Amino acid sequence: MISPLRNGVQRIVLRRKMSSSIKHYDYLVIGGGSGGVASSRRAASYGAKTLLIESKALGGTCVNVGCVPKKVMWYASDLATRITHAHEYGLFEDLPLTKENLKFDWSAFKKKRDAYIHRLNGIYATNLAKEGVDVVFGLAQFNKEGKVEVQTHDNKTETYTADHILVATGGTPVVPDSIPGYEYGTDSDGFFHLEEQPKKVAVVGAGYIGIEFAGVFHGLGSETHLVIRGETVLRKFDTSIQETITEHYVNEGINVHKLSKVAKVDKNETSGKLTIHLDTKDVIEDVDTLIWTVGRKSLSGIGLEHVNVKLNDREQIVVDEYQNSSAKGIYSLGDVVGKVELTPVAIAAGRKLANRLFGPESYSKDKLDYTNVPSVIFSHPEAGSIGLSEKEAIEKYGKENIKVYNSKFTAMYYAMLKEKSPTRYKLVCAGLNEKVVGLHIVGDSSAEILQGFGVAIKMGATKSDFDNCVAIHPTSAEEIVTMR
Amino acid sequence: MISPLRNGVQRIVLRRKMSSSIKHYDYLVIGGGSGGVASSRRAASYGAKTLLIESKALGGTCVNVGCVPKKVMWYASDLATRITHAHEYGLFEDLPLTKENLKFDWSAFKKKRDAYIHRLNGIYATNLAKEGVDVVFGLAQFNKEGKVEVQTHDNKTETYTADHILVATGGTPVVPDSIPGYEYGTDSDGFFHLEEQPKKVAVVGAGYIGIEFAGVFHGLGSETHLVIRGETVLRKFDTSIQETITEHYVNEGINVHKLSKVAKVDKNETSGKLTIHLDTKDVIEDVDTLIWTVGRKSLSGIGLEHVNVKLNDREQIVVDEYQNSSAKGIYSLGDVVGKVELTPVAIAAGRKLANRLFGPESYSKDKLDYTNVPSVIFSHPEAGSIGLSEKEAIEKYGKENIKVYNSKFTAMYYAMLKEKSPTRYKLVCAGLNEKVVGLHIVGDSSAEILQGFGVAIKMGATKSDFDNCVAIHPTSAEEIVTMR
Repeated sequence: MISPLRNGVQRIVLRRKMSSSIKHYDYLVIGGGSGGVASSRRAASYGAKTLLIESKALGGTCVNVGCVPKKVMWYASDLATRITHAHEYGLFEDLPLTKENLKFDWSAFKKKRDAYIHRLNGIYATNLAKEGVDVVFGLAQFNKEGKVEVQTHDNKTETYTADHILVATGGTPVVPDSIPGYEYGTDSDGFFHLEEQPKKVAVVGAGYIGIEFAGVFHGLGSETHLVIRGETVLRKFDTSIQETITEHYVNEGINVHKLSKVAKVDKNETSGKLTIHLDTKDVIEDVDTLIWTVGRKSLSGIGLEHVNVKLNDREQIVVDEYQNSSAKGIYSLGDVVGKVELTPVAIAAGRKLANRLFGPESYSKDKLDYTNVPSVIFSHPEAGSIGLSEKEAIEKYGKENIKVYNSKFTAMYYAMLKEKSPTRYKLVCAGLNEKVVGLHIVGDSSAEILQGFGVAIKMGATKSDFDNCVAIHPTSAEEIVTMR
Repeated sequence: MISPLRNGVQRIVLRRKMSSSIKHYDYLVIGGGSGGVASSRRAASYGAKTLLIESKALGGTCVNVGCVPKKVMWYASDLATRITHAHEYGLFEDLPLTKENLKFDWSAFKKKRDAYIHRLNGIYATNLAKEGVDVVFGLAQFNKEGKVEVQTHDNKTETYTADHILVATGGTPVVPDSIPGYEYGTDSDGFFHLEEQPKKVAVVGAGYIGIEFAGVFHGLGSETHLVIRGETVLRKFDTSIQETITEHYVNEGINVHKLSKVAKVDKNETSGKLTIHLDTKDVIEDVDTLIWTVGRKSLSGIGLEHVNVKLNDREQIVVDEYQNSSAKGIYSLGDVVGKVELTPVAIAAGRKLANRLFGPESYSKDKLDYTNVPSVIFSHPEAGSIGLSEKEAIEKYGKENIKVYNSKFTAMYYAMLKEKSPTRYKLVCAGLNEKVVGLHIVGDSSAEILQGFGVAIKMGATKSDFDNCVAIHPTSAEEIVTMR
């Protein structure tokens, strides 16, 4: 849509006019991602006059270019794999349901996925409206006077002040711009914009984002190359997860280039294909799509210097345990802080901050405890983790004070299949009473399995608390309460 | 295989010869089901000289005609349903993957399933042998002298005594033998012997077994009729589970005959088809298979009167909280007791009994706590339950002391599909601190989800313990820790 306001002259006139009226709010939230939306809604529910400013789409990374569309693609990929199990389950034996025959209509499915995301954007807007939160779409900056100036999407400039300001501007992918030809690759945002399925794809990076993308591509039939610097993927997780996922990815046919870095990327301007040169001298040719998943950085460039909000050396906003920044009345949380970059962490922190600022007296000390936060990876199969890895536990408690329980098995679903998918569970306990300080799981349904154990571990569960719960049979999760 | 001992004369001679030598054990276990196997292995691990007697196949109901083959069939049925989602996920659009085109090779798949069960029988035997448990296959009876006499499968009669005897003989389905023509139907054991898929099937009974069978048949394409006495299925569970599963079964096309009892069954001797007359005057015609799932009873007919083991009026063995029967040195657990008829309950009770009888001093008071045992239903979708239903909680604590949290939503997987499957969660809390006294869930992965929450609830979790755990996104389980 072309608005008549998209005209330089008119815009300037309007800006002068608007900036003369400064609106004041109780609570001003910059960033309509998971944390900002949750915090603004909670604040408004207490009666605080609240404004939310978003520069792109409501829901932020999670809804638009993160968890949600990623999980939708994971479902497609998981279903594609399961369909190839049909014959071994006696189903549709008259149809050629093999990996080789797999057809996936990427572009039509992307449209459907986008429509779903668009519906979610709308639901976010409706929920904000229901709570009485004002929403402005535009780019917010602190100006020299310390006020919040917004260049709106309809090209107005508006200025706001507030008693309390939350900066929840999130993060963005980084690309390795020192590598020649890096610009031929895209990033995780670009993954969600792909209109066609690449026949051959290279994903660079061993973190959870790269591992999830590689799993999705492979499951949907792309020839998939994964370039990692070390011997294993998911290096921030327990070795049991690293080893199990790496081994399974290799076994199922993902081309994992270990101990490799990208040295150079060339593009054939005729065919559009990429050639990726690794520092091992290996070359990956005829690549349709290259995706960098080598890290993320904070989106902190909104004039924070004008309000004396301190950043650390990674340009992340420094906050205390109550989400207070170094400037009084300015708070921050979520990916721009970077403590634990997970949607539910931002949501929980955002709600607790609103509770503390605007809620009843009983919430005056409310804050998020960042320990024992569960996190999961939508790999194939899924993996999940709570608390300390075995290595971290040994460092913290000493090897002699740690007891580790391991279980490795094939889930019943795969009993009917030739190709197995692994299940591996590790429980890390500390002290004489064997307090559970770490739980690391790989296998189908891991993301769903982990939530309840998260509650138990947060409560301080010991091994005997795990054992005291009668198993649920036949499940995979029951192995976690029957480890010896 | 025909053994030369299958000869009347030889057998009698042998019996006389063998019965003269009575073998004595520390621990004698009658019944090689889940409870008996677990208890005998645990006892032997402590060095107890242990004998296990099994009359059919190792693993009992669970492995042979219960949880395990049921779950395998559930997987087939679940996969069949998911395959019909392929097109909506952009997959295999060139193939006719519709419900109407579903083909399932029941008889070949049954052979494969049977082979898997047979492997499990072997694993049970191996594990028992590894622990040094002696195993005899045959039918055990207490004789008039109170000794255990076994008619072995190779037609010997052997007699045993033991310091401690565990009766873990399990249960068996009942059929309504007062209904004319009841004999044309089969029971849950018969379900597992079906060599062909019925085109049209009637399942009678609203308990979890009937609900699981009906779900499996429907998912695999049989025209499925379910005859229930009330308005809803699963009457022993919370109303949220009753209502959600009943409604969904009706919606997805299972013919649920509510408020109905079978009055009479006729068989057409030419076609072999059954006609089922209901007391509502409705008639279900051309039925290939009728399955009674109207209850189970204890298998307690093993001469217990000779050793003064007391039964209740349902012929279940009466035991105290330590699994002691009324006869000193004779114990019982599992389905023959009937307290909580679940495999893991029998396993846990069996292990704890062996701990108490043969383990270290610290286990001298070991016993199973039967409260807050999680249980699940492999319906479509799955359901699961821990603790008190809302109704039970109100009866126990009073309505004013109960707070109930409800959540009903469509899981993300179904966002891409026209036909939705329901997810519904209910949390029942009691008292000012909102202790969680009941959790009732319906939806995909419920069986896996429930295990961890089982640990937390057994630990005495409150609503705030649930809330304190950060959510795992995007999952269904996260809704359980974010209810308002």
